[in-house]
Amino acid sequence: MLAISKNWLSAITICLAAIGAEKSWAQSATDLANDAKTTDQVLTVGLGQGQQRFSALDKVNTSNVKSLVPVWNYSFGDNRGQESQPLVYKGVMYVTTHDSTHAIDPKTGRGIWVNKFEYPPETPRIVCCGIVNRGAAIYNGKLYRATLDAHVVALNMEDGTEVWKSKAIDYADGYSMTMAPLIANGVVITGISGGEYGIRGFIDGWDPETGKHLWRRYTVPAPDEEGGDTWPGETYKHGGAPTWITGTYDPELDLVYWGAGNGGPWNAEFRKGDNLYVGSVLALKPKTGEIAWHYQFSPNDPYDYDGVNENIIADVEIDGKMQKVIMHADRNGYLYVIDRTDGKLLRASQYINKLNWADGIDMKTGRPIDSALTKKMRATGEKIDVWPSAFGGKNWFPMSYSPKSGFVYANTLEMGMSYKPVEPVFKKGTFYFGLDLAQLQFLFPDDGNTGYLRAIDPLTGDIKWEVGSQAANWGGTMATAGDLVFTGTYTGQFKAFDANTGEEVWSFQTGSGIIGQPMTWEQDGKQYISIASGIGGAYRNFIPVFGAKNVELNKLMASVPEGGSIWTFALQ
Amino acid sequence: MLAISKNWLSAITICLAAIGAEKSWAQSATDLANDAKTTDQVLTVGLGQGQQRFSALDKVNTSNVKSLVPVWNYSFGDNRGQESQPLVYKGVMYVTTHDSTHAIDPKTGRGIWVNKFEYPPETPRIVCCGIVNRGAAIYNGKLYRATLDAHVVALNMEDGTEVWKSKAIDYADGYSMTMAPLIANGVVITGISGGEYGIRGFIDGWDPETGKHLWRRYTVPAPDEEGGDTWPGETYKHGGAPTWITGTYDPELDLVYWGAGNGGPWNAEFRKGDNLYVGSVLALKPKTGEIAWHYQFSPNDPYDYDGVNENIIADVEIDGKMQKVIMHADRNGYLYVIDRTDGKLLRASQYINKLNWADGIDMKTGRPIDSALTKKMRATGEKIDVWPSAFGGKNWFPMSYSPKSGFVYANTLEMGMSYKPVEPVFKKGTFYFGLDLAQLQFLFPDDGNTGYLRAIDPLTGDIKWEVGSQAANWGGTMATAGDLVFTGTYTGQFKAFDANTGEEVWSFQTGSGIIGQPMTWEQDGKQYISIASGIGGAYRNFIPVFGAKNVELNKLMASVPEGGSIWTFALQ
Repeated sequence: MLAISKNWLSAITICLAAIGAEKSWAQSATDLANDAKTTDQVLTVGLGQGQQRFSALDKVNTSNVKSLVPVWNYSFGDNRGQESQPLVYKGVMYVTTHDSTHAIDPKTGRGIWVNKFEYPPETPRIVCCGIVNRGAAIYNGKLYRATLDAHVVALNMEDGTEVWKSKAIDYADGYSMTMAPLIANGVVITGISGGEYGIRGFIDGWDPETGKHLWRRYTVPAPDEEGGDTWPGETYKHGGAPTWITGTYDPELDLVYWGAGNGGPWNAEFRKGDNLYVGSVLALKPKTGEIAWHYQFSPNDPYDYDGVNENIIADVEIDGKMQKVIMHADRNGYLYVIDRTDGKLLRASQYINKLNWADGIDMKTGRPIDSALTKKMRATGEKIDVWPSAFGGKNWFPMSYSPKSGFVYANTLEMGMSYKPVEPVFKKGTFYFGLDLAQLQFLFPDDGNTGYLRAIDPLTGDIKWEVGSQAANWGGTMATAGDLVFTGTYTGQFKAFDANTGEEVWSFQTGSGIIGQPMTWEQDGKQYISIASGIGGAYRNFIPVFGAKNVELNKLMASVPEGGSIWTFALQ
Repeated sequence: MLAISKNWLSAITICLAAIGAEKSWAQSATDLANDAKTTDQVLTVGLGQGQQRFSALDKVNTSNVKSLVPVWNYSFGDNRGQESQPLVYKGVMYVTTHDSTHAIDPKTGRGIWVNKFEYPPETPRIVCCGIVNRGAAIYNGKLYRATLDAHVVALNMEDGTEVWKSKAIDYADGYSMTMAPLIANGVVITGISGGEYGIRGFIDGWDPETGKHLWRRYTVPAPDEEGGDTWPGETYKHGGAPTWITGTYDPELDLVYWGAGNGGPWNAEFRKGDNLYVGSVLALKPKTGEIAWHYQFSPNDPYDYDGVNENIIADVEIDGKMQKVIMHADRNGYLYVIDRTDGKLLRASQYINKLNWADGIDMKTGRPIDSALTKKMRATGEKIDVWPSAFGGKNWFPMSYSPKSGFVYANTLEMGMSYKPVEPVFKKGTFYFGLDLAQLQFLFPDDGNTGYLRAIDPLTGDIKWEVGSQAANWGGTMATAGDLVFTGTYTGQFKAFDANTGEEVWSFQTGSGIIGQPMTWEQDGKQYISIASGIGGAYRNFIPVFGAKNVELNKLMASVPEGGSIWTFALQ
């Protein structure tokens, strides 16, 4: 089946290339599969379908990074949060914002085309955690992106005109879309946001040429489906399990790994049971959406431990044997290594300082062991101080994995929360928490560092080095063969660290705060590095509300000016 | 009188310095007078009260400018046009936007304080030519700026809090304020915008400590005042003569040189007479607003030749004799050199390629000589094609004068307009033109260059070198002792040119288009250069409307993304 599909795709690719000989848009399945290895283009969010966010480029390295300077800046004319990662194909950069898509000449920084769309003005009301978009996918001459009002759009890469636009679902019911689509085996795959609004999560497959809806995999099964018995009564209808972070794809296994998020409502006592596939990773067959296997990080998910975080594909040696794994730093504070062929748990380790909701992971069952605190909360409904907070030990911002060092580089969080469950009330398009919001407060560590950039051994959880910051980093990281780790800060510095020591070796102050995802590519023999700047996102939305007592942090955050632009750097 | 005032000011300054020994805010009259010479601070818009926009700094020069790189960027979170010039005092940068004032640490690019204000939402309706602000003035610990809704504000430089706010006039009558205030002899002096709305122009003096209104000098005299007989009937009431560009100040002569703009309505046949002080420069005594002398560039002003452009103070040798002059490139296409002691015309020369409204300047009377075309228009009211357009040979964007080269460096315009006068109708807060707007069309030169950066000999009008561009440069220029001329382009490149040859020696693509004013200063032994980026202004407002036929130009302009930030550059 796999072989046939791939041949079929290659045929299409050749055909298109023959028609448009001068302008070849032949991003074939093979191109996508090779994206992690090629350095002259970046076709995928994550620098490869496995999202290692590792580049083999080493022209910029620890010995010369001090000469890294901006070569251009391009303003979006938009002051919402910028979480997107640019793509580069055949010498053109493509980057998204919440309401626009831009093609830019990376040699000059001047725009080639812009596609701007309007969504209904009430849409932002149903976007809990920042008016953002996280990127696009490209394939066979089209660029695919999602919209806040829950549509999937295909644009002509040459001129930005719309080829098709398909509605996923009605945004008015609390659904939105912020993730980048994934191309897998010739299918455009998208997830959905809305875990705070009592949605019923799903993953969709679309025909890349026509936008035809191919399949839907609900991440909350109906009562008559497998796993349906993990939901009492009608609770599955608003069970959450959103899918708002782009999955990864292993073309050899032909499996997509996609995270499903928190339960709806947050208060788990009103949905007793494991609540599949809340807080899980699903291995899906991309042609059909069929579930090959699943692994649940947080059964019943009592604390908004939204299991959507990326599942990095890597082949690593474990106990003397090379294993095909995914690595996943869950919001619940544990870093998982899972056999990606069958979903078997191989390793689980705590990657944050303070974690009191569980006493560890049972390696036999793969289930977390409720701590006394969680048991007390479940039994009595008493207010508790639980760590990590609903922001998790790591939020959406993707980590990188360096096959050179064997470490993952993750922006992590050190925050807890005061948590008091109450009876939830479902009202379409509003927060469906089942919490006393007046008592919901973030808790902060004594040393004041709410976040750490950490180099973590994925097999042991050992932290090789860490760099703390008062305002948590809220963007992705990127590792390179130049022994550098790039990431941005909330206060807007784009930074490079020595991948082996954690020493800060370079920094540049961009105009706004950074919550974007770095990327790099090579053009005409020169290595370029790009990052979006533009503050926004969940931290900015919720710290001033539920963390107001931390006056110094709020003062620091308020000092970050709004903005929105894409930066490109190179050696001077 | 002058000596007494200066002593009195010095006394205040010393007193303040004694009180606040650690934080000295002693920008005295002497500091202001020396601003053009000092390189470690920039206290005035124009790099000195004479606005030569020349810096004695030569650390960045033609031989090393290739190593100039951005050191930080600071976003305003604002996508209106950015025409402001930053100031730097004691290691802090101060910069304005249309609705905010920012103090920035120029070593890090991080904000120190922001003062943001709200003006009535309908205010932009009475701002013809871009929602902008052009800068601030600083004096004795306070920062002074104007607001779109016609107020003058003093802020505490240390924390940005408002010290006083005084209303100049009711914005609803078509008045607004965009210029930077001028400090002269201890008085805060401001002008007014609104020449397109049938205002009656004026210049105000304010007490810097209290905001008390000290004096008003109407630039359209009432019937019983001197010059009142140049206005028929009641026409003076809506006579225009706005004063929206900051004047210059000669502390030795204690005279302020301030331009007064176009007549209201544009159609001059309905206000027969010279219409003082339309299209003039006024020499004012700053303590009282008394007029020492005036010179009228465009008597009766038939074409919106808004005489507000800056009047650069310089001492130059003319006919073997050193002369105290002002230099002024008028919208009407002539570059004037005037004795600043008495207003006597010394030189007048055409500085643009095409000019057909006049046949020259009568050096005896100082008056332009109407061309046959203008005579025909006046006699018949027929539609004509006149050059330059209402944008002028140069618009608001200030030129620089290098005492080292003896040249002025000006962004100039090459456009004409189709012009058909009709009977004007005054309606409060709306355009008061007296033109058939359906027939108002910009005319473009054959070579497509609507603008040229030009090095001009002010005494002869000879153009030493020029660099053309399809979209006109709409920002200021700055010359330095490093033999460099800096300016920005509509498409967003900040550029340096060899002051002697016009060769482009450096360029950097900022995020948006540039319409700001460059400045430079020295800190800890390093030369820094700053410019705001953020497209906007009159060209952006009106080319798409009255120049729509130039499809290529409009396409180019539309490709410039909105944005708003301040950039700082230094040698790598």
